[in-house]
Amino acid sequence: MARDVTIGELAAHVGDEVTIRGWLHNLRSSGKVAFLIVRDGMGQVQGVVSAGDVSAEVWAGLESLAYEASLKITGTVREDERAPGGYELSLSDVELLGPSAGDYPIQLKEHGVDFLLEHRHLWLRSPKQVAIMRVRDEVVKAIRDFLYERGFVNVDTPILTGAIGESAGTLFETEYFDLGSAYLAQTGQLYNEATAAALGRVYCFGPTFRAEKSKTRRHLTEFWMLEPEVAWCDSECNMRLQEDLVCYIVGMVVERCRNLLEDALERDISKLEAVQSPFPRLSYSESIERLQSLGSSIQWGEDLGAEDETLVAQDYDRPVFVYNYPKTAKAFYMKENPEDPRTVLCDDLIAPEGYGEIIGGSQREDDYDRLLARIREEGLPEESYGWYLDLRRYGTYTHSGFGLGLERTVAWICGVPHIRECIAFPRTLNRLYP
Amino acid sequence: MARDVTIGELAAHVGDEVTIRGWLHNLRSSGKVAFLIVRDGMGQVQGVVSAGDVSAEVWAGLESLAYEASLKITGTVREDERAPGGYELSLSDVELLGPSAGDYPIQLKEHGVDFLLEHRHLWLRSPKQVAIMRVRDEVVKAIRDFLYERGFVNVDTPILTGAIGESAGTLFETEYFDLGSAYLAQTGQLYNEATAAALGRVYCFGPTFRAEKSKTRRHLTEFWMLEPEVAWCDSECNMRLQEDLVCYIVGMVVERCRNLLEDALERDISKLEAVQSPFPRLSYSESIERLQSLGSSIQWGEDLGAEDETLVAQDYDRPVFVYNYPKTAKAFYMKENPEDPRTVLCDDLIAPEGYGEIIGGSQREDDYDRLLARIREEGLPEESYGWYLDLRRYGTYTHSGFGLGLERTVAWICGVPHIRECIAFPRTLNRLYP
Repeated sequence: MARDVTIGELAAHVGDEVTIRGWLHNLRSSGKVAFLIVRDGMGQVQGVVSAGDVSAEVWAGLESLAYEASLKITGTVREDERAPGGYELSLSDVELLGPSAGDYPIQLKEHGVDFLLEHRHLWLRSPKQVAIMRVRDEVVKAIRDFLYERGFVNVDTPILTGAIGESAGTLFETEYFDLGSAYLAQTGQLYNEATAAALGRVYCFGPTFRAEKSKTRRHLTEFWMLEPEVAWCDSECNMRLQEDLVCYIVGMVVERCRNLLEDALERDISKLEAVQSPFPRLSYSESIERLQSLGSSIQWGEDLGAEDETLVAQDYDRPVFVYNYPKTAKAFYMKENPEDPRTVLCDDLIAPEGYGEIIGGSQREDDYDRLLARIREEGLPEESYGWYLDLRRYGTYTHSGFGLGLERTVAWICGVPHIRECIAFPRTLNRLYP
Repeated sequence: MARDVTIGELAAHVGDEVTIRGWLHNLRSSGKVAFLIVRDGMGQVQGVVSAGDVSAEVWAGLESLAYEASLKITGTVREDERAPGGYELSLSDVELLGPSAGDYPIQLKEHGVDFLLEHRHLWLRSPKQVAIMRVRDEVVKAIRDFLYERGFVNVDTPILTGAIGESAGTLFETEYFDLGSAYLAQTGQLYNEATAAALGRVYCFGPTFRAEKSKTRRHLTEFWMLEPEVAWCDSECNMRLQEDLVCYIVGMVVERCRNLLEDALERDISKLEAVQSPFPRLSYSESIERLQSLGSSIQWGEDLGAEDETLVAQDYDRPVFVYNYPKTAKAFYMKENPEDPRTVLCDDLIAPEGYGEIIGGSQREDDYDRLLARIREEGLPEESYGWYLDLRRYGTYTHSGFGLGLERTVAWICGVPHIRECIAFPRTLNRLYP
């Protein structure tokens, strides 16, 4: 009897008769021979049917098969260098398991992006989208392995919070029983600062929410963010950790997803292979000088916009750090730079090839009085920050951390211009469906 | 010069002079010798200070040290079997890095749970809470490793959704720009069913929300859930996967966290070592008979409550499956049992020792017409389910999956009665702080 296998397992079954369950990706017929391309989520394989090798019923049935019909195909595995994946099946049976309506929305032609997003549940089946999701999975795995090996503990932080985070006005709000409003977390960092004092090296890695009305190719209202936090680590140590992590991620993905990157994503892998430490570093002030010399009108004190990031990174073949921004351009919790109190000890890591910021990190303000003053300056609700201030009352400690945007990192690695393709079901200003 | 190390690294530095940064967990003094217990998140170590070995200033400074002061201690590593962790430091210097206010709320006495939860950001520093967080981390790692090795792809599903999920009335709602309301996801499963058709074997693993007014020891309004979904897998295959996963998790945690389980958590490890496949299986009907014979007044058709779960599991030393519940007791998307259409192809996995349900799984309804009928029967908003129904229009396929509650699983493994200790910042009916 034919053995049930997945397309990924064909290499071990050359010469055997096997059965595969999957979906019809393409079908063409020339007289007495038909060629089916079937995908099962693990891969694609071509099956060849000769009219003489199957029953008349099976042969006749091929005609009515629509894209994405689900099938059980049985046949003998043949090695074939020309075949995608390197194997082909000589089919002895094709059984229809689930028919597909004839109006399958996504055809082998170009569709507009709104149409594709409206059919995201089906668009995800196409080879490029499958490749992006697989790369994303490997990025996640690389991140978790890297941190586990270095003694980090994954401590998940809450989504439902009191009014605490980076900036009000961009918070999603929900009614929370008799306690008034809860807000969806924009960051887990503040909570990480509590757990780092308990566990030394921690990270959270979950969805993050920004009710921003941004419509750029680098914004989603819901995205995943990795946030490590490290006790007894200063800004310098923090940048080294970011550099090591990014090199590790890129290295693992190139190793494990080379075929997906080259074939489905047509990514120039040499660009990724250039991502080696050390990464160049520019102080914020240096970057402003550089931008001005390149014609930008940016002034000292302003945050870098997307165009500035592209400009500042254009001469480098790997990510570049811009560090120690002006206090006014950054969040209240960043530690004042003792060597220049106009600035804070922080960094942004800007990806090459115009992909922009993928990480923002900082050493945290560990002085109780300075932190309280900053909370008041920003007009934040002091009562919500009582526990956060406690971390400075009871054994305050040098600590740093950063946030890595998962979709931005995946977009850069995959060479995809818009991050909406780097999450399964993107949420934007105009989209909540499917 | 003394080398900076963590407490976890002491074994490699016996005889060396090292420096550790951490927090003061305890201090006692007897005349000319003081004993400091310092924790750094990786572990605890005892440092011994003799008045003659340190400066008069350092010796005098010890007196004013409060719990949780952050310190830099320097000394020589000595092996000592009696010491917790097996090593001790003969200190030559103690430097105060961050003082701790004298009113540190959590003392070495019993506190009420409301008090502890109000100070959760500090409570997390205590050894039992540290142990629970470390076990949780290893559970997460075991889950992800298990699935990765079996070809599963982690595809994160959205939190912000249209009205879709298990049951209305227990949804958190938020305003979503001009699109009306969004609801926080109660499950990622329906989205998993789309991605499983793209990638074969998938899982999501993230926070989940239930606006339930439950105040039991097994409910949180925000909890983490693992949800795998598998193409071409029926209910039987689904139960085998659950069994294999749970055995793997428990095995890995026992291997990696034996000391934490035995010491900080006082867990009877033999109870965990008994968790071996195969798990006993009872049909729903068998479990009702059994419950009735044990004196329960439950009637066929009713869902099992927490007490029923404890009763049905009491004679087993490992988790028990109860399978094929009445349709009326379960969600609309479960596949009708062809052998008894009053029931659906599903299972709950009930942990031993009274810990109750940790997994709920099912084969999914793959028939378009039956699914649509069930959506209508339940009065669900049909327009929100258009994409979900598409999965049955375009190549419908046999598939199954399940949801494993992370905090419930951790509570069982740790032997902790209430799941609120198994998440860093629990969210309950009355608690949104810290």
